[in-house]
Amino acid sequence: MPIVLAFGGNALSPTSSEDGKDEERAEALAAALLLLLPDDSGLVLVHGNGPQVGNILLRVEETRGRLPVEALDVLVAETQGSIGYLLTRALRNVTQRRQRRVEIAMIGTQVEVDGDDPAFGKPTKPIGPFYTTAEGEKLVVKKGWSMVEVRDRGMRRVVPSPKPRSIIEFHAIADAVRGGSVVVAGGGGGIPVTRNAWGELSGVEAVIDKDRTASLMARSLGAVGFVILTEADGVYDGFGTPEQVRFETLPVSEARRLLAEGKLPAGSMGPKVEAAADYAEAMGQPALITSVERLTDSLDGSAGTWVVP
Amino acid sequence: MPIVLAFGGNALSPTSSEDGKDEERAEALAAALLLLLPDDSGLVLVHGNGPQVGNILLRVEETRGRLPVEALDVLVAETQGSIGYLLTRALRNVTQRRQRRVEIAMIGTQVEVDGDDPAFGKPTKPIGPFYTTAEGEKLVVKKGWSMVEVRDRGMRRVVPSPKPRSIIEFHAIADAVRGGSVVVAGGGGGIPVTRNAWGELSGVEAVIDKDRTASLMARSLGAVGFVILTEADGVYDGFGTPEQVRFETLPVSEARRLLAEGKLPAGSMGPKVEAAADYAEAMGQPALITSVERLTDSLDGSAGTWVVP
Repeated sequence: MPIVLAFGGNALSPTSSEDGKDEERAEALAAALLLLLPDDSGLVLVHGNGPQVGNILLRVEETRGRLPVEALDVLVAETQGSIGYLLTRALRNVTQRRQRRVEIAMIGTQVEVDGDDPAFGKPTKPIGPFYTTAEGEKLVVKKGWSMVEVRDRGMRRVVPSPKPRSIIEFHAIADAVRGGSVVVAGGGGGIPVTRNAWGELSGVEAVIDKDRTASLMARSLGAVGFVILTEADGVYDGFGTPEQVRFETLPVSEARRLLAEGKLPAGSMGPKVEAAADYAEAMGQPALITSVERLTDSLDGSAGTWVVP
Repeated sequence: MPIVLAFGGNALSPTSSEDGKDEERAEALAAALLLLLPDDSGLVLVHGNGPQVGNILLRVEETRGRLPVEALDVLVAETQGSIGYLLTRALRNVTQRRQRRVEIAMIGTQVEVDGDDPAFGKPTKPIGPFYTTAEGEKLVVKKGWSMVEVRDRGMRRVVPSPKPRSIIEFHAIADAVRGGSVVVAGGGGGIPVTRNAWGELSGVEAVIDKDRTASLMARSLGAVGFVILTEADGVYDGFGTPEQVRFETLPVSEARRLLAEGKLPAGSMGPKVEAAADYAEAMGQPALITSVERLTDSLDGSAGTWVVP
C-alpha cells in the first residue's frame, strides 16, 4: 500500500530553467520526498506544472501564425515529460548517493473528466500570458476564449477546471508501485480527456487540479498515506492576519464547514483542504498538508495540519 | 518475451499538428501496430521525434532572450510526453473498438551514453531551424554550436549522436511489458544522460538515434521480434536508380559489408540496417525493415527486408 504525495510545479521551478538551478531544486525536493518512502511499499508523486506550462504557452503565443499551435492537452503532456525527467533523474541521483535501491519511473497519465462537468460552462483557471484589453477582446471573438481582467496586469485566458473522474493509466501505475517503486504520475493534474458513448478518448482544453487528481489517485490505490506539500506549512484560521492560528488537526466536518463558508481561498488552500478531506473521509485515514521545509517536523506532529476523519 | 518496434516521428506528424490530423495518423498507425501485438507477450514501441522536437526548437529559438531556454535533453523529454500521449490514446481507442483488452502506458526513458563517445568530438545530427550564414557564424562564436552549411537552405546546427549504452528505466519497462502490456518507451531515442564516477546522471546536449536505442531495447529485453518501420518498404540495392532491387533477406555479413562500403546512406537507411544487424547477430533471430503500409505483407514474407543471422 503506497503513499501518495502532491506538490506544486513551483517547488521545482519558481522562476525559470535557464539558471541551471532546476537540478539543485529537484535534488533538494527529491531528498525531502525520500523521507516519505517506506521500505517495502511504493510512493506515487503527483506534481503541478503551473510555471512550466506557462512558459510553453508563452512560446506558443509568441510564435502563433508562424509555427504550428498545440492544444492544451498536448502541452500538459509535454510538461509531464520534462518535469518527470527532472524529478526521476534527481531521485535516482539522491538514492544512488544514499545507496538505496529503488526503481523510479514516470508514467504518462491521462485523466478522464466528464464532458458535462459544470466547470466547462464556467472557466476559472487562469493560464498563459497577459494581454492588453484590446488584444484580449480580439481573442475572445477570434478564438472563443474566456478571458478575465486582472487589475494592473491586463487580460488573461481562463480555462475550465473539471473534476477528475478516473485515471486512465491506473492499472499501469498500480502495478509499478506495487513492487515498492517510486512512480511519477498524474503530472499537472493529468492530461484531460473525455470519453464518448463508445468509450473512445478525446483531449479537451482544460486543466485538472493536481491536488484533486492526487486525492483520487490515493483513494483509488488505497494509499496508506496522503500528503500535500505547499508554500504554507499548514492550514491557518485567519491566514495573513496578525491573529492567524495553524490548525494542528482539522476534522473533515470542520474542513467542509470552512469550505462551505468560503473561509479558504478558492485558488490556493481551498482545493487542497477539499482533496485532503475527500481522502480522510473515504479512507478513514488522516491526510497531511505542510511545506517541504517542515515535512520532517510534521511527521513528528510538531508542524503541518492533519486533516482527520 | 515481447516484440520491439521502432518508427519515425514522421509517421505521426509529417507536417504540423494544427490541422487536427495527428489524431487520424496516430490511429491509423496504432491499428497497424496492433497487427504485431501477440496475445500473451508484450510490445515495446520506440518512436522518433524529428518533426516534433524541430517545432519546439523553432519556438525556443524565436523567443530566445525573452523566455527561458531549455536544453536539448529537456526538449526530448517534452516530446516523449506529447508523442507518448497521442500514441497511447490512439492505441486505447483502437483496442477499445476491437474489444481487445490490453494495458497501454508510456514510460519516460533516459538513455545513458558515454561521455567519451567519439560522437561528441564530431557532431553530425542536424536539428532545429535554418539560419543565414551571418546568423549561423554568430551562433558558432556566441553559443559554441557546431553548424553545417546546407545548400540553398542556409546554416543548421548539428549535435552529437552518441551510441546508447544502457536504458536507465530498463527494469520498469521490462516489468510493465512482462504482463503483456504495450509500452511506449525510449521515445526520440531516449533522453541522453551521462554518468559520472559516483554513478550520478546529468543531461547532455545530444540526440540518440532511435533505431539504435530500439535495437538495444530489443537485445536487453530478449525480444522475440524486432521491426523497424520507415518510409521505404525495405532495403534496396541501388536505391533511387531504375535498377533498384529490394533485398528480400539480407544476411548480417552482407549488411556489414554494405555499411563498411558506404552503400547505405548514413542519415537514413544506414543506422536502421546496423540496428537490425546488431539484433539479428546478438539474438540469432531475423529483424524486419519495412513500411507501415506493407507491414502485413511483410509478415507474410511478400514485402520488406528481413535481416537474418
